[in-house]
Amino acid sequence: MSVKRYILSVLVENQSGVLSRVSGLFSRRGYNIDSLSVGETEDPGISRMTIVVRGDSYILEQIKKQLNKLIDVIKVIELNKDKSVFRELMLIKVNAKENSRASIIEIVDIFRANVVDVSNETLTIEMTGDENKIEAFVSLMKPYGIREIVRTGLTALERGSKEIKSYRKYEEE
Amino acid sequence: MSVKRYILSVLVENQSGVLSRVSGLFSRRGYNIDSLSVGETEDPGISRMTIVVRGDSYILEQIKKQLNKLIDVIKVIELNKDKSVFRELMLIKVNAKENSRASIIEIVDIFRANVVDVSNETLTIEMTGDENKIEAFVSLMKPYGIREIVRTGLTALERGSKEIKSYRKYEEE
Repeated sequence: MSVKRYILSVLVENQSGVLSRVSGLFSRRGYNIDSLSVGETEDPGISRMTIVVRGDSYILEQIKKQLNKLIDVIKVIELNKDKSVFRELMLIKVNAKENSRASIIEIVDIFRANVVDVSNETLTIEMTGDENKIEAFVSLMKPYGIREIVRTGLTALERGSKEIKSYRKYEEE
Repeated sequence: MSVKRYILSVLVENQSGVLSRVSGLFSRRGYNIDSLSVGETEDPGISRMTIVVRGDSYILEQIKKQLNKLIDVIKVIELNKDKSVFRELMLIKVNAKENSRASIIEIVDIFRANVVDVSNETLTIEMTGDENKIEAFVSLMKPYGIREIVRTGLTALERGSKEIKSYRKYEEE
């Protein structure tokens, strides 16, 4: 039973407490959540979570089954890395006095990132990409001095025309 | 006691169960979480959550105090809408047969969004912005037929050079 990384996409009723019930299922089994993002969908009554977890496959199967038993959970699918689009959004604030500003903006342009705020001492930059791109950008910013970072965690959709609602209640992809 | 929308930025130890403890605090008081995103920071042992909630201010004060009592919680700040940068990432899959593809791509370009996947029947588009921009884009996509949407929920950083770590353990901004 090897420890791997899994990405789950979970459609839930937008009810008070659903997030704590879902995240509780993972923590009760000592399963650490690497990242989680939850937002609205095209239907205001329904939210969609993207959960990145690391653990062994046997326990993950148990968790998926239990997720499906929660009344608030409409659908759970596991996203295949090769058949999905993954994206993450990061805001990063770095030290940027006058003498280093130009060279930071050069890197920002190469990464197609955007400067969203400027102060006398800092630049705040928004960037979107897969994890590798984000990690690469962070490591290039390190020498300037990173003040703070906030990341959304991964969000993902399956490639092609298939949609989550077309799956049976519990199905792997 | 009016019902308003609040955005909390919470720095937490990256421990199993922290997410369910934090979200449990809200649900036990019937406080619904509109969106939540959690991801890594510049320190691998520390994660940062952005939580958007709606409720009355008295209960929110209680929740913030209780959050601060959790061992895993390093810092809680409330972000001021006028002094912060807010962003959200959305992936949206829309019906796009040959005859409508060009007009969709026209809108994508105006919004500086990106097409990230194409199939015979659909386009999958990535876009970043504040909520208004995202809502506007979604409503323009509706006539084509939205297949699925996933959103990260809001993430945010305070404008200027100040950083979350420079706040005392419990402070409002």
